[in-house]
Amino acid sequence: MERHDNRTANELRTIAITTGYITHPEGSVLMEMGQTKVICNASIEDRVPPFMRGQGKGWITAEYAMLPRATEQRNIRESSKGKVSGRTMEIQRLIGRALRSVVDLSKIGERTIWIDCDVIQADGGTRTASITGAYIAMVTALHQLVENKVIKELPVSDFLAAISVGVLPDGQEVLDLNYMEDSTADVDMNIVMTGKGEFVELQGTGEEATFSAKQLQAMLQLGEQGIQALIDKQKEMLGSITDLVN
Amino acid sequence: MERHDNRTANELRTIAITTGYITHPEGSVLMEMGQTKVICNASIEDRVPPFMRGQGKGWITAEYAMLPRATEQRNIRESSKGKVSGRTMEIQRLIGRALRSVVDLSKIGERTIWIDCDVIQADGGTRTASITGAYIAMVTALHQLVENKVIKELPVSDFLAAISVGVLPDGQEVLDLNYMEDSTADVDMNIVMTGKGEFVELQGTGEEATFSAKQLQAMLQLGEQGIQALIDKQKEMLGSITDLVN
Amino acid sequence: MERHDNRTANELRTIAITTGYITHPEGSVLMEMGQTKVICNASIEDRVPPFMRGQGKGWITAEYAMLPRATEQRNIRESSKGKVSGRTMEIQRLIGRALRSVVDLSKIGERTIWIDCDVIQADGGTRTASITGAYIAMVTALHQLVENKVIKELPVSDFLAAISVGVLPDGQEVLDLNYMEDSTADVDMNIVMTGKGEFVELQGTGEEATFSAKQLQAMLQLGEQGIQALIDKQKEMLGSITDLVN
Amino acid sequence: MERHDNRTANELRTIAITTGYITHPEGSVLMEMGQTKVICNASIEDRVPPFMRGQGKGWITAEYAMLPRATEQRNIRESSKGKVSGRTMEIQRLIGRALRSVVDLSKIGERTIWIDCDVIQADGGTRTASITGAYIAMVTALHQLVENKVIKELPVSDFLAAISVGVLPDGQEVLDLNYMEDSTADVDMNIVMTGKGEFVELQGTGEEATFSAKQLQAMLQLGEQGIQALIDKQKEMLGSITDLVN
Amino acid sequence: MERHDNRTANELRTIAITTGYITHPEGSVLMEMGQTKVICNASIEDRVPPFMRGQGKGWITAEYAMLPRATEQRNIRESSKGKVSGRTMEIQRLIGRALRSVVDLSKIGERTIWIDCDVIQADGGTRTASITGAYIAMVTALHQLVENKVIKELPVSDFLAAISVGVLPDGQEVLDLNYMEDSTADVDMNIVMTGKGEFVELQGTGEEATFSAKQLQAMLQLGEQGIQALIDKQKEMLGSITDLVN
Amino acid sequence: MERHDNRTANELRTIAITTGYITHPEGSVLMEMGQTKVICNASIEDRVPPFMRGQGKGWITAEYAMLPRATEQRNIRESSKGKVSGRTMEIQRLIGRALRSVVDLSKIGERTIWIDCDVIQADGGTRTASITGAYIAMVTALHQLVENKVIKELPVSDFLAAISVGVLPDGQEVLDLNYMEDSTADVDMNIVMTGKGEFVELQGTGEEATFSAKQLQAMLQLGEQGIQALIDKQKEMLGSITDLVN
Repeated sequence: MERHDNRTANELRTIAITTGYITHPEGSVLMEMGQTKVICNASIEDRVPPFMRGQGKGWITAEYAMLPRATEQRNIRESSKGKVSGRTMEIQRLIGRALRSVVDLSKIGERTIWIDCDVIQADGGTRTASITGAYIAMVTALHQLVENKVIKELPVSDFLAAISVGVLPDGQEVLDLNYMEDSTADVDMNIVMTGKGEFVELQGTGEEATFSAKQLQAMLQLGEQGIQALIDKQKEMLGSITDLVN
Repeated sequence: MERHDNRTANELRTIAITTGYITHPEGSVLMEMGQTKVICNASIEDRVPPFMRGQGKGWITAEYAMLPRATEQRNIRESSKGKVSGRTMEIQRLIGRALRSVVDLSKIGERTIWIDCDVIQADGGTRTASITGAYIAMVTALHQLVENKVIKELPVSDFLAAISVGVLPDGQEVLDLNYMEDSTADVDMNIVMTGKGEFVELQGTGEEATFSAKQLQAMLQLGEQGIQALIDKQKEMLGSITDLVN
Repeated sequence: MERHDNRTANELRTIAITTGYITHPEGSVLMEMGQTKVICNASIEDRVPPFMRGQGKGWITAEYAMLPRATEQRNIRESSKGKVSGRTMEIQRLIGRALRSVVDLSKIGERTIWIDCDVIQADGGTRTASITGAYIAMVTALHQLVENKVIKELPVSDFLAAISVGVLPDGQEVLDLNYMEDSTADVDMNIVMTGKGEFVELQGTGEEATFSAKQLQAMLQLGEQGIQALIDKQKEMLGSITDLVN
Repeated sequence: MERHDNRTANELRTIAITTGYITHPEGSVLMEMGQTKVICNASIEDRVPPFMRGQGKGWITAEYAMLPRATEQRNIRESSKGKVSGRTMEIQRLIGRALRSVVDLSKIGERTIWIDCDVIQADGGTRTASITGAYIAMVTALHQLVENKVIKELPVSDFLAAISVGVLPDGQEVLDLNYMEDSTADVDMNIVMTGKGEFVELQGTGEEATFSAKQLQAMLQLGEQGIQALIDKQKEMLGSITDLVN
Repeated sequence: MERHDNRTANELRTIAITTGYITHPEGSVLMEMGQTKVICNASIEDRVPPFMRGQGKGWITAEYAMLPRATEQRNIRESSKGKVSGRTMEIQRLIGRALRSVVDLSKIGERTIWIDCDVIQADGGTRTASITGAYIAMVTALHQLVENKVIKELPVSDFLAAISVGVLPDGQEVLDLNYMEDSTADVDMNIVMTGKGEFVELQGTGEEATFSAKQLQAMLQLGEQGIQALIDKQKEMLGSITDLVN
Repeated sequence: MERHDNRTANELRTIAITTGYITHPEGSVLMEMGQTKVICNASIEDRVPPFMRGQGKGWITAEYAMLPRATEQRNIRESSKGKVSGRTMEIQRLIGRALRSVVDLSKIGERTIWIDCDVIQADGGTRTASITGAYIAMVTALHQLVENKVIKELPVSDFLAAISVGVLPDGQEVLDLNYMEDSTADVDMNIVMTGKGEFVELQGTGEEATFSAKQLQAMLQLGEQGIQALIDKQKEMLGSITDLVN
């Protein structure tokens, strides 16, 4: 059974990753999954937030936003509204947690890694593309600390990528939903996984629907395949830095 | 292996549910899971939010808060801070989505069911206790609409409860974590499930840790047992209304 | 002439005071005046606000809130609105001032006593019930400091309670108005008084009405009787601590 | 016993009232009580706030502010802080309530009278000066409606003025406290009274102090004298309009 | 060709400057340009904002506001709206920049000069009147520092005034537009200039219109004349302090 | 005399304009001036803001933002701060005014053209690059309305571009300052001009410095040259649409 863009159920969209995209950040990636485009920047700040001070360890935090016209309909800017939406908060908390799971914060000193994921064009899967792209930006920034002899070794224990899976109205489980699929799906699940195939985060939601244990297993299997392909791509982009991850 | 409060791995805390707790709301429940106490009120408003108007269907939305001293350390009130935290937003979005999954919104007319979950004492598992208690408050309020002949039948397709499961630092998977367990656990997972055993929501997180597919299966099994027990308790509290759910 | 709930003009509603209501706070009281129910928690923090630092003395501050459905109509949460209403501010300033009038702040060191009054069910007189209940919670918390030998003696100079009085549309002065009376009264007056019968606060308001000197005297007399009864109840609840107040 | 500025206990400060102070408002008064100077403007808007619509009656609402350097120390602007303080809210609610008590809102149609009291120089008693001055501005604006034949008669039932009284640390009750007295007084009471000598509002506060029934009577007597003098001054300023008030 | 208020194209409105207008500030001026009236207060604070600390130099910052009824239509208070408008921000940034251009900040120590410009009556040209009046208030405040031997000499390098010029719909360039002219003008330009005739700020805007190089020159010439007259007035008001400016 | 990047005083940086940059907006341009990169999107909304309704004409409004790491130091997001800075407000008001000056709003019906300028990399001149790029995006969007026969003709009266000029510390007037020049310049001036060479906006500022009439003329001359080159580039990008502008 074919999807509306001719992909098979377990087929990812075209992946394009541009490193060094913006000049100033210590790590900068343009992450493209089909028509979804996210600028992922990693910045290093030489201090930690108040609640972390004096512990001799670092912190990783993420912010996520969309350009107003990243979507079909223009959205009001969150700066104009004067507050960040619940959706945005959920996503930025997710990105931060995911990245922290593979970094040994005790090895980066009292530094904060700021991850900024700015969606310039959205077609579904922006939060998972953000995590996958931000991982590369973060590793690049941390590697720069190693190069500058600020820290001794790359404090990254594994690769990390994310993908969405879901169940379409016809009952078909599919990988990497685009916006059209996402907006009609019965079930939507985001999976964050390491290079060793361990789960970091699993968020499955049946909005006005439910899903069975069997459907869960099918989605997990699709997700694992997708993540493995994304991690292969990450290794390719990171080149020789790949060997420093462990 | 015993837990610090002498429970076995698959043992729920003592459940106490008081219905009709507050006078004014259409449904009101004091939900207690061990030392966690949540007032769950359901209010019916005869209109829907702007984005729903004119569709002839209803809406369910939830708000969640803690009294400042529900916890060991006093928290600053969100009204004083002037904004709702990301954690609060996540939880209230979760409660709303969960409840909407078992209600046929097209059968309640242009009405909003407001669910207010106010934690007066917290000892872990406040979001899952909120969902389990709010379900009863909501069904009570909807049943009142039936009694008052405002709607014809109870538009509730199934029972619904939620529970937390997790992995302790010693690797043991456990059910219904209290605060002491939750704050040290490697993995924390919240499961929302229907009476038929279908998943509504699955949120597993390994903060600075990961979990394997095997651990996931063990947690899902514990969760299913816990939810079945909670739903039995819900049926007991709802009495004759139980038969109207389907 | 009889009131709508059969009370006489100088009759208080049924008083119920539960101490030790919530586990975590240093002092916790559920204060009930008829159908009005307020959770009054006292928390001790080992520092004072910036404007008090370095003076070697303490501070008492109060916050007041209502659950959204404490009232007949659901109110929007102040945390959702992003600001605290003028009414709430007035009440919490009143509670704080009242309690400070009977405590020797120079004897508690640089500590803040946080008073949280959360109305879970409202039927008129919530601010006066808050003061009367918060007094007990505060004394309990201060007594714990004495027990723990943090301070030498209970720094409380007198008992303190509050009650509302008013003039009904028929011209009758009455004590302890419930919501139905309060919403139609010509005059509403809140009185805060010490055990020695001294005034701490007097706030009389004739919204779209006025009151004469004679009516004022009648209201003051009713208020004094009511407060004496409340203070008797406080003494009963505080038991042996009662003797330490002076 | 003499006060620090040589006034006797029952002596008001020099009163100066300038009408027609600002060009645009329908009523505009510069109210001076000694060194306290308040611009009181009354504006008429041809609609009422949402909660009043469709009732065929009007509304009176007040706003109060201080210039940042009205006081000895510069205060941060409330517009810069992004919120109005509790003190400001209390005062503007008081001014609005007081003025509404002498106006028949059903006779002004669906109109709002906006009262703006802006303190340009503060030396104690700003809220009572605001009420006394705002009364004149309001009556002027309402009279203009009569002149323009928008309404038939002046819907004002009585005169209205306000003054502060208090107890100094030496136990002396005094009238019309300036800032130096106010900041050290044991008791501070604001009285709003009509031309007929009826109370509209009574707010007595003993911050870290209390007051006896006898002191209360002494303060009320001083207040009544002061208010009578202020109302005489109001009549003088209003000239022939005076006869229309009843 | 005559203007609607009978002025010639290069004629200023009547200027009235009252010094020492408010008691508390170190410098206080009531600046009147025709019907435009602005209270300009200068306050000295013995510290600088965080971004300036430790540099041994001072800072000048300005705030600008209007009373709600300074204008024909009542405006909502910015404190009630909870935020400062873009227009207000532009104006206060302009005033601050302008004043800083003639003060040697390295000679005033770590002090902040707060400039508060509060428009009590508006008839066009409020921002330029604010600058011209604030200059006098600021110099007065700085001179007081000299008098009190806090600083050695007046750190003011030149006089400074501002005026508006514009092009009316009939093509006529005019000086010092009042509100009626300003609201219909094709071009509006604000000029800030020193006593030596150097530009400090030039802001010309053609809302839904444009202007030629020739019109620009004509406006600049008018502006220069106006500013010279304003500076003559400033010298007169500052009296003997005038000689200390250089 | 050479500039630090080897440009001559009247030399623009390399201009790169990519049209159709983002898929969803009706007009989308990536505008690059040297290292400054701005995404300029134009969106058409079929209604106008409340203050414009019922007049049968349209509106153009602009929003401007920077990615947090568009600059050398990471800036806090305005959505996180909960408010838009004064600088941002100034810039977006400037962009909106500038674009409105060349569009006949009465010919676009009750529609709003939203202009979003998002700086993804900043190296000086972001506001002028925004105007120049937004002009193309806006014309593209308006042309689409013509193509879709929603409006009859392109309601654009002229070309429009903007550039910065300034005076370096050595007294040299220069065109198109980059960040290093801008941050040290004595004078900074932004010029917005039409294809016919008329001024739309002129904003010259001497922060802690002043400028003479002669320097002003030199800057205006440089600006005019720069703008002419930019408009040539605009014509090239707009191709056949160019002929519809008049």
